[in-house]
Amino acid sequence: MATEAEGRLRQALRGVSGILVTPFDPDDAIAPLRLAPVVDRAVKAGVSVLVANGNTGEFYALTTGEAEAMVHATSELIDGRVPLVAGVGRGIGDALALTRASRKAGASALMIHQPPDPFVAPRGVVAYVSRIVDEAQGLPALLYLRDDGIGLDAIVDLCGIPGVVGVKWACPTPLKLADAIRATDPRLVWSGGLAETWAPAFYAVGARGFTSGLINVWPERSVAISIALESGDYVQARSLIEGIVGFEVLRSEERNGANVSVVKAALQILGDDCGSPRVPAAWPLPDDTWRALRQLLEEIPASASAGLPTVR
Amino acid sequence: MATEAEGRLRQALRGVSGILVTPFDPDDAIAPLRLAPVVDRAVKAGVSVLVANGNTGEFYALTTGEAEAMVHATSELIDGRVPLVAGVGRGIGDALALTRASRKAGASALMIHQPPDPFVAPRGVVAYVSRIVDEAQGLPALLYLRDDGIGLDAIVDLCGIPGVVGVKWACPTPLKLADAIRATDPRLVWSGGLAETWAPAFYAVGARGFTSGLINVWPERSVAISIALESGDYVQARSLIEGIVGFEVLRSEERNGANVSVVKAALQILGDDCGSPRVPAAWPLPDDTWRALRQLLEEIPASASAGLPTVR
Repeated sequence: MATEAEGRLRQALRGVSGILVTPFDPDDAIAPLRLAPVVDRAVKAGVSVLVANGNTGEFYALTTGEAEAMVHATSELIDGRVPLVAGVGRGIGDALALTRASRKAGASALMIHQPPDPFVAPRGVVAYVSRIVDEAQGLPALLYLRDDGIGLDAIVDLCGIPGVVGVKWACPTPLKLADAIRATDPRLVWSGGLAETWAPAFYAVGARGFTSGLINVWPERSVAISIALESGDYVQARSLIEGIVGFEVLRSEERNGANVSVVKAALQILGDDCGSPRVPAAWPLPDDTWRALRQLLEEIPASASAGLPTVR
Repeated sequence: MATEAEGRLRQALRGVSGILVTPFDPDDAIAPLRLAPVVDRAVKAGVSVLVANGNTGEFYALTTGEAEAMVHATSELIDGRVPLVAGVGRGIGDALALTRASRKAGASALMIHQPPDPFVAPRGVVAYVSRIVDEAQGLPALLYLRDDGIGLDAIVDLCGIPGVVGVKWACPTPLKLADAIRATDPRLVWSGGLAETWAPAFYAVGARGFTSGLINVWPERSVAISIALESGDYVQARSLIEGIVGFEVLRSEERNGANVSVVKAALQILGDDCGSPRVPAAWPLPDDTWRALRQLLEEIPASASAGLPTVR
């Protein structure tokens, strides 16, 4: 990979990595064109990376063929405006097929999900990631780390695989994140993988950037939080996060089963209908949730024009 | 489904449900015919149910196409000698495709894996299982329950779906199992889903039958444990389990990442080579493990002819 492109990617990862929803039509088929206004809004607001086939994109509910179609379509919709990071994962055969499709689609980097198998050897994850990185033929890779139980040694080994440029830390364990940052190459980009609410705690121990599903709905707010954190203004970041707590509480309902459901409901309310989520997500949502959500969304236009920090 | 066939299935589930490995050739392609001696040995020993596409079969490392091929091939190899239970799961599209293939293959029942998504609503699992059971068109279904965190209410709802005839309880929580048995239809078959070592504790609270990956290697021992438990002889069951503890300890190494690896290594030693496991399993195994395994396997022929209880 050219050094210039990699430098641009590393810089972008220090901002907001927006995890796009996967739109479905009323027959439950993928409907990628419905993403167009969502992508445009996110890019305009200053979201610096967009991610296809992440968990807000219901990656585990897609067939590999659907995931391949989504990465191609998303690349077209983004059209080079920001780097596209492509989620890949599941069984090694599916992961390699999706890696090839993501490379052909012109993705700037891969985000490698941890394998879902019940029996996972820490060194088996290293072998798994190595095979994907080989297949990626020079495309940089990010680790999406949801289970730090594999241990620091395995994390260090994973970070030492040539081609791995960063980690999305998605475990609620900031001190383990600090240990991992300390034990690895300082050039790696460590980003928060648990969205806005966890971002300050991760920044406080050395992370840069964070992932966000909120950007599908309210990218200006995510970017404002990013700018506050990048400038070290934790007071401002906390105040901005305070305004989305109601939204995040709704997403955490039903044992987090409403996580994507609430984002898709909000998109329907905003007029950018991306359909409903697939099972096993919570759907349909209770009337109370819709009511609370409508009220929360009314605050968006007011705050968007209320002198919040603007981008660059 | 005919009452007679369902009665036979319920009876068989009270014995040993053997979870077959998935054999791979040196090019890592599935090689189902290598299972023939493993299936024959299990049936001869009295294993009462065989399962394709379970976790010992590395379900999450297979593509859906490979899983479909495995259920067809396994059905041919079993040839009606015992009921075939077919594992189905992953995203709903893949799960429905595999359900259709399993029905066409002549499976006697489905075993539904819990969906691997990070955001799972308890009622979303109920919706997921309902759609699979609809697609099964009368084929009975077993729930494979690895996460009891969905709560008793959801478990009761899942058990109330018409077509669900039993549960493989794969959580280390016998008192929750007892609660679930108490709260549901007494005709359901609750089996232990954590193999031989957990079977006595599950039997003690009302389970019947258990799953086993050991049957790929030493089915006589699994069946002897089953007979002891079915006759209420916990002392004998414990004594028989004592003889496999060394094997189970090896399987638990590397954070359980050696679970399938040790079974496949044992098959190689026995001359029934089913290849190596796929990533993220632990492979190759350390020399010490091979040495310990060879020593353990030397005990099998001795015990098999040493007057252990025989079947029926």
